[in-house]
Amino acid sequence: MGERPPVDFRTEPSRYRHWKLGVEGRVATLWMDVKEDGGLVPGYELKLNSYDLGVDIELYDAVQRLRFEHPEVGAVILTSGKERVFCAGANIRMLGQSSHGWKVNFCKFTNETRNAIEEATAESRQTYLAVVNGACAGGGYELALATDSIIMADDGATAVSLPEVPLLGVLPGTGGLTRLVDKRRVRRDRADFFCTVEEGVKGQRAVEWGLVDELVPRSRLFEVARQRAVERAARTDRPAGARGVTLAPLHRAIEGDRIAYRHVTCAIDRRLGAAEITVAGPGTPPPADLAGIHALGAAFWPLALARELDDLILHLRTNEDEVGLWVFRTAGDPALTSAYDRLLLEYRADWLVREIRLYLRRTLKRLDVSSRSIFALVEPGSCFTGTLLELALAADRSYMLDGTRPGDDRPPAAIRLAELNFGAYPMVNGLSRLESRFLREGGRLEELRARVGEDLDAAAAHKAGLVTFAPDDIDWDDEVRLAIEERAAFSPDALTGLEASLRFGGPETLESKIFARLSAWQNWIFQRPNAVGEGGALRIYGTGQRSAFDRRRV
Amino acid sequence: MGERPPVDFRTEPSRYRHWKLGVEGRVATLWMDVKEDGGLVPGYELKLNSYDLGVDIELYDAVQRLRFEHPEVGAVILTSGKERVFCAGANIRMLGQSSHGWKVNFCKFTNETRNAIEEATAESRQTYLAVVNGACAGGGYELALATDSIIMADDGATAVSLPEVPLLGVLPGTGGLTRLVDKRRVRRDRADFFCTVEEGVKGQRAVEWGLVDELVPRSRLFEVARQRAVERAARTDRPAGARGVTLAPLHRAIEGDRIAYRHVTCAIDRRLGAAEITVAGPGTPPPADLAGIHALGAAFWPLALARELDDLILHLRTNEDEVGLWVFRTAGDPALTSAYDRLLLEYRADWLVREIRLYLRRTLKRLDVSSRSIFALVEPGSCFTGTLLELALAADRSYMLDGTRPGDDRPPAAIRLAELNFGAYPMVNGLSRLESRFLREGGRLEELRARVGEDLDAAAAHKAGLVTFAPDDIDWDDEVRLAIEERAAFSPDALTGLEASLRFGGPETLESKIFARLSAWQNWIFQRPNAVGEGGALRIYGTGQRSAFDRRRV
Repeated sequence: MGERPPVDFRTEPSRYRHWKLGVEGRVATLWMDVKEDGGLVPGYELKLNSYDLGVDIELYDAVQRLRFEHPEVGAVILTSGKERVFCAGANIRMLGQSSHGWKVNFCKFTNETRNAIEEATAESRQTYLAVVNGACAGGGYELALATDSIIMADDGATAVSLPEVPLLGVLPGTGGLTRLVDKRRVRRDRADFFCTVEEGVKGQRAVEWGLVDELVPRSRLFEVARQRAVERAARTDRPAGARGVTLAPLHRAIEGDRIAYRHVTCAIDRRLGAAEITVAGPGTPPPADLAGIHALGAAFWPLALARELDDLILHLRTNEDEVGLWVFRTAGDPALTSAYDRLLLEYRADWLVREIRLYLRRTLKRLDVSSRSIFALVEPGSCFTGTLLELALAADRSYMLDGTRPGDDRPPAAIRLAELNFGAYPMVNGLSRLESRFLREGGRLEELRARVGEDLDAAAAHKAGLVTFAPDDIDWDDEVRLAIEERAAFSPDALTGLEASLRFGGPETLESKIFARLSAWQNWIFQRPNAVGEGGALRIYGTGQRSAFDRRRV
Repeated sequence: MGERPPVDFRTEPSRYRHWKLGVEGRVATLWMDVKEDGGLVPGYELKLNSYDLGVDIELYDAVQRLRFEHPEVGAVILTSGKERVFCAGANIRMLGQSSHGWKVNFCKFTNETRNAIEEATAESRQTYLAVVNGACAGGGYELALATDSIIMADDGATAVSLPEVPLLGVLPGTGGLTRLVDKRRVRRDRADFFCTVEEGVKGQRAVEWGLVDELVPRSRLFEVARQRAVERAARTDRPAGARGVTLAPLHRAIEGDRIAYRHVTCAIDRRLGAAEITVAGPGTPPPADLAGIHALGAAFWPLALARELDDLILHLRTNEDEVGLWVFRTAGDPALTSAYDRLLLEYRADWLVREIRLYLRRTLKRLDVSSRSIFALVEPGSCFTGTLLELALAADRSYMLDGTRPGDDRPPAAIRLAELNFGAYPMVNGLSRLESRFLREGGRLEELRARVGEDLDAAAAHKAGLVTFAPDDIDWDDEVRLAIEERAAFSPDALTGLEASLRFGGPETLESKIFARLSAWQNWIFQRPNAVGEGGALRIYGTGQRSAFDRRRV
């Protein structure tokens, strides 16, 4: 991927090329209208509302903005701006020409965006409805599956389909299989049949099998959809009269191997393949009240932090794939950081504060599912408290300096638990990071909860199980350096599998199943000669040839 | 794999080359003592108690026989017969020289055997204890993890380790990662560290981190182990004075493309890559009482069926990898079949009947996790009832002939639910196949339960959701033939991923996580150049070279 220009995830509605966003009262509409020659990289045409990463970046931005900039919107209609096609899914030629890493990273991002649509419905109370006004295939149907309700044109032609297996020799990899059986509870044998039929299923059978929710004559499609959306919007708890918060352009400076935002900086060590990421706590006291938070808007530290961290993760994942280790530090005043956390807790019922917490939650989840090793270093001057402590809890491993360094007159590092660590930021498995850490050790959580607000020095934090190691100044440099160098020497693939297996103990959810079972299988298939070798199904799609598969099952 | 002689899974203690089995009162001991030159295929030496499929086939047989032939045994000590090594895990040279398919199939079988050890502990009340009397690495530690309690020698040298990531660039693929965090609840950051340290962890830290249960001086190791085993055995519900049932050699005839057992036959169509498997119901009425079951022993139809089906699945998986579709039929008298099911239910508290049910359960689970498409065809003359109905419920898709064929004067096919379909044979996700089929449609299960014993014709079975399609005689041939031919034309890899994703809706368990998350990641890694390419870690192990990894994360 080194040769292509870096992908920028920052955009805004005025720059959209593929989506149109309209708001009418409590209902918004997102029209997908992909520009054929608007591909992110050369080599393919985005026909039939097929998408690539560029199209999905705009969708991600739109979903994000609807939450922050439109508090009044309680329902979102997702439909096509084209005549006879809803969406043909991910562009096949794009997949065919992409590297393995690009395909996997693309699928991860699209999965996260679809999960965000479900989160917006469930948690932000902005309910998404898909209005399928034409052919809806593969990733197109998977997009519809991410909404709360699928309304399909009953015109004898419009069908939903997942033709990946028969046409391309790969899986529907954006949550489709999992959502079929786990979300929509389509019977597994019907799902099996459905996934092998190129032309898909239409009309009454689609409703009966649970593939769509409602069938409406084409002439009345948008009238009925609007009605359904209005009904949903009426049930939201979002305020009709509030003013939104504009997500102003995010400032980012990339200079050589340094990436700097206002609160987050990153220095890349290419020899080690490591990124040193420092998150700065707030520099000023928080506003006095809720009005102050709204007045600050995107400048409010927790929101600014979420946006910067989110963008950095996406940037590193997509543009810096040789950087396999992310080392997190924090810097700042724990007391100030705690004061912001208290605001998030105190005003948690407010729509904006809720959105900020959800955005932090999504960003931390994105970190958890990133295929990068994560270390956290807790040193004097740091502020691993509450929300920022989640970074250390998300790490595969953490080191906390016991004591101080000669010549450094700052006090020893301390970490501090906050109420927010006990459920505000669940992982994809539905558990808080503390719960995931102390699986079924319920007693431990109770103990820790009693210590909220307490400063825990290295010995105490180590004893409490909150950090992995607590070396003193004499051992620190060697121990940390060795761990970092060692990590760089391991097989990156083995580390990816290791981390994906150890990070998510305990229960599984729809989301965790998508990132584990489904994505892991898809990644495997994306490596198989039957899909990507000479003559593989994904490679020869559209040439009129047929793949001669190696028929051995493994 | 076409060139090597077929693997035979049938063995017995007198033929073991790698294990010794001893029974003393209520406690059995299994000594692993692998013969270096006893590899299943040429090309490697089984040094340091490392294992290949041949070693594991014997372990599988031993675990099986202990359950049936030793009702008196309540605890099993699993240890090494060698001086300073417990087990070095799967043989690396064997892995390095094996095809992708062989590696994946090998891991699946070893996983199933370790799951059987856990099932024996939990359900058969034969508790396994590992006595780690020397180096215990990789698959060796994974074997120990499958037991209920790990007792380790405290000698300053003996350690447990999972060195796959640092040494081989692959995962510990036999459940190790999942069992670390989900079974033993080792803290995820400690697990991360542990899995990156070649030399592993020994002594007090191993206990403190939960990697082993008890540390005992070498001089007292077996004395203490024996004591622990006796304590466990005292708590079993297995009868001390009962007579075991000998698992007499299983008769199997392979002639060309036909495989015949007493109750199960299989005809392979190599053009279609399909195996037509016919399971015959019992030919005679069941014995009158429990004594009759015990007297019949291995000849009792349900036990004979389990053994034959189990062997056939293993044979096809290992020796017939180009046969991607298994088509199940049954033939027999539904009334007789039901009569046997009633016995299994009536005497379910008996140790032998319990073992038979558990064996059927394991065999059906093995079917579920097989990477083969499964169809069931329900036709006149069939007996898909109770236990045998599970075959149709395990199928990815089922077809039931509505009515009869001209010239066939048998009555139309019927299927019949039995009490056993409602929980006796849970899948790896912990749900019955009916529950998995009607996820969260609790009401449906209640309705079906009220119909136990009723003959359901094609229309009724289709309406009840128990079969996928119910074509009549006019459509049958075309519809079924097309489905079979179509399946053969799809990418086998895509089908494997599809089936693995659709078969297990609902909750996840330790077992399902091993077969999904962990195995899927391992399969992916087993395809990656960093592991298996020229210079890949698995290929060059032991040469003294170091892999130059492609450091890109995907």
